[in-house]
Amino acid sequence: MTKQNQEGLTAKKTENFSEWYSQIIEKAELVDLRLDVKGFTVIRPWAAMTMENMFEHLERELQKNGHRPTFMPCVIPKENLMKESEHVQGFTPEVFWIKNSGDSKELALRPTSETLYTPMFKLWIRSHRDLPLKLYQRGSVFRLDTKSTRPLIRGREFIWIECHDAFETKEQAEAQVQEDIQVTEKVMHQIYGVPFFPMKRPEWDKFAGAEYTVGSDCFMPDGKLIQQPSTHLMGQKFSKAFDATFKNKQEKEEHLWTTAYGPAISRILASVIATHGDDSGMILPYAISPIQVIIVPIFSTENKEKILKKSQEILETLQELGIKSEIDSRDYKRPGEKYHIWELKGVPFRIEFGEQDLKNNEVVLFTRDTKKKEKLKLKDLKILNKLGQEFDKRLKEKADKFVEKRLVDCSTKKEIKEALGSGKMARVNFCSTDKSGIPCAEIVEKEFSGDVRGTLANKNEKPKGNCIICGKPATKVVYIGRSY
Amino acid sequence: MTKQNQEGLTAKKTENFSEWYSQIIEKAELVDLRLDVKGFTVIRPWAAMTMENMFEHLERELQKNGHRPTFMPCVIPKENLMKESEHVQGFTPEVFWIKNSGDSKELALRPTSETLYTPMFKLWIRSHRDLPLKLYQRGSVFRLDTKSTRPLIRGREFIWIECHDAFETKEQAEAQVQEDIQVTEKVMHQIYGVPFFPMKRPEWDKFAGAEYTVGSDCFMPDGKLIQQPSTHLMGQKFSKAFDATFKNKQEKEEHLWTTAYGPAISRILASVIATHGDDSGMILPYAISPIQVIIVPIFSTENKEKILKKSQEILETLQELGIKSEIDSRDYKRPGEKYHIWELKGVPFRIEFGEQDLKNNEVVLFTRDTKKKEKLKLKDLKILNKLGQEFDKRLKEKADKFVEKRLVDCSTKKEIKEALGSGKMARVNFCSTDKSGIPCAEIVEKEFSGDVRGTLANKNEKPKGNCIICGKPATKVVYIGRSY
Repeated sequence: MTKQNQEGLTAKKTENFSEWYSQIIEKAELVDLRLDVKGFTVIRPWAAMTMENMFEHLERELQKNGHRPTFMPCVIPKENLMKESEHVQGFTPEVFWIKNSGDSKELALRPTSETLYTPMFKLWIRSHRDLPLKLYQRGSVFRLDTKSTRPLIRGREFIWIECHDAFETKEQAEAQVQEDIQVTEKVMHQIYGVPFFPMKRPEWDKFAGAEYTVGSDCFMPDGKLIQQPSTHLMGQKFSKAFDATFKNKQEKEEHLWTTAYGPAISRILASVIATHGDDSGMILPYAISPIQVIIVPIFSTENKEKILKKSQEILETLQELGIKSEIDSRDYKRPGEKYHIWELKGVPFRIEFGEQDLKNNEVVLFTRDTKKKEKLKLKDLKILNKLGQEFDKRLKEKADKFVEKRLVDCSTKKEIKEALGSGKMARVNFCSTDKSGIPCAEIVEKEFSGDVRGTLANKNEKPKGNCIICGKPATKVVYIGRSY
Repeated sequence: MTKQNQEGLTAKKTENFSEWYSQIIEKAELVDLRLDVKGFTVIRPWAAMTMENMFEHLERELQKNGHRPTFMPCVIPKENLMKESEHVQGFTPEVFWIKNSGDSKELALRPTSETLYTPMFKLWIRSHRDLPLKLYQRGSVFRLDTKSTRPLIRGREFIWIECHDAFETKEQAEAQVQEDIQVTEKVMHQIYGVPFFPMKRPEWDKFAGAEYTVGSDCFMPDGKLIQQPSTHLMGQKFSKAFDATFKNKQEKEEHLWTTAYGPAISRILASVIATHGDDSGMILPYAISPIQVIIVPIFSTENKEKILKKSQEILETLQELGIKSEIDSRDYKRPGEKYHIWELKGVPFRIEFGEQDLKNNEVVLFTRDTKKKEKLKLKDLKILNKLGQEFDKRLKEKADKFVEKRLVDCSTKKEIKEALGSGKMARVNFCSTDKSGIPCAEIVEKEFSGDVRGTLANKNEKPKGNCIICGKPATKVVYIGRSY
């Protein structure tokens, strides 16, 4: 189909995940790296269409919760970026600057948009009656990251949604952080089938400018963790930097309480691929696959016309049922080649349809995850939406099981070492996630090549006993893992 | 609601269109210019939601015609941008450059993406079997335009869709140009209600790098023309510059034939506002309004509960009918203020609902364009979708009528002068739209402050007689107007 190599995967997911992932990216025609600009990639139609479907689920949920879309500029005036001091320190080393801003101010490409939304909050919000104000945008941000880049996972440009919300009180802002975690749960876990741990990051690992950060940690098949949507309690840091105030119910001027939530769709797609795929390629959840059912007609020159005619009828039946479906009627490819291509691309169901099936008023139904083939009567096609739901349920349950086995309670250093060495995450008692915990975190990094990922953000886990590293009384139950 | 001035429009559309437009932009809360960076604006929720609806119609039509989405990087390597010489000359003066590309190539912000898509075509297309390939992306492009900027109309960043298509033959590519005009007709005219003239631009006014350009000219209320979606026959210019070839049916390598189509959603929104609005504010077509029916309950402290309860029932009925609707239940605003706000924002229908209506099982229905109020029984709410279609039909017909009166056949210079002076477009016989026509075009510009916009692109109009300027035999029927 293209000049890229269309042959199957040669790497096994369990043996060499990294190579398996690279092959999928190329062979399922997801991302093209041949523009050859570090960190900037071309996202091809199959990935783009999947991402569009993912956006749709996420935006519907955000809008249901009262978020409204906006389009902010892709550039930020330097003076805005420089307003909040921790933010400056955290982000300016990573910023792309425009060489020729012309007759206007010095401009950066936005690395994230707190310093665009907050000055607008100042203009738009007058009183508590204008609150809460919950906005978002879908778009690109740019970070001159010097770490190694990986397609969909880490780039210098990435495509995300960023929500920026303003509230009257800290309690409301903190409730928003919990709502954000719920959105991740409802969409990323329940719909895309990717489980996660909402981790309140240690003080030393928060977003530059935030009071605290909750990151969603997902397992990759090699046991490493990847951060998915993070949500930040900005508190009053940005509103004070921009002097964004409102009149409270007592008619007193107060600074706004703000939060930010940033699901990166391309990166979540990486987790979807990694979580569900197998040695034949991707397995896409029914809810987000651009094609839910691919029809492969099996014909010779003799019966081509009648087989294609009936295939068209099947297609129309499926489309009337609201099922995203297509016919692969290319006559220069054998059915086997087509099976291979659509398995690689992760289409949940394949209908094979030939002479015998025509006679019997049935089709052969192939299910991507179980690889089972079964007969299905034409009159029963409507069952496919139900089968699609079951398909997604199976993917999610399998992913949940994989993760369950990967969490180990550890009470000795040796146990941590074993856990991390076998691609697991350790749950341990720990002295502190404030700055006083840094020495112990450094030991964790040095001895186990692991990170203290944080404490569970949606549950208050009480430690018993002492810090597993320094032996002082523990104040937190933390999770330790290896990460990307 | 915000710190911006919420009072009504003071400018009249027919008297001072420019001021009227500026007031709408601000008072209907569409765009905020107070970031104060020339050409970069903040698009607020009401405009963003409308644009999302506009994107949806357009993308559905493009996908129906076989286009598939992609995400290209926002940056282009300098070496790519420099490949096609006319393109270089046309665009490089307008390009923003990145100061610190780090360890990578010299990068520009994309002004348009031919030089990203064509090298990908080279990689992705091997034979005629891979054709046609029709791709698009939704996103921002950046041009360091030195002309004066206007919100939604002309900016240094604008939000558009760009389609890039590749074909086997020139005929197929030219058919695509006609299909693009049809998409503009189906979506911009039939759905958004904005009529246009598809103008094949003169040689001296085509896209830098194109064989020819078709621009869609729309009237603004002041009689000036604005270019809406343009489509370009690139021919083999870009494919030759990037050596993008394919094997044709005779197994011979040939260069691809490419086209590009670029509807700028924000700019089309400007035409929607300008075309349909009146002295009370915007009038949004039912098909794209973020709220199709706004419910304004009329209550006192005594009956608030029961009125709001019934309003909620009305809302649910409307939502079940698939009608985008909301209740404005703010108790710190009088009903009259609310009427004013939603009229300014152009919501097609308003339902007023108070004590008397509750008793009579009816509502008062206000229709934005006609400003008529009428009673509607609660059981008849389902009529609203039909009324919505009629609403859009009225807007379109009114816009069509406005445009019809603005086209004048002229056979003398005096008639051209009169036509352009009264905000009309002149149709005249003209010597040539090749470079040999430039001297006459310059006279048109000098004597009438007008532009030769081109020839009708979807109809072959035959001239009779001589060029209205130089008196040589005419080869074209051209349209002359004043433009933005």
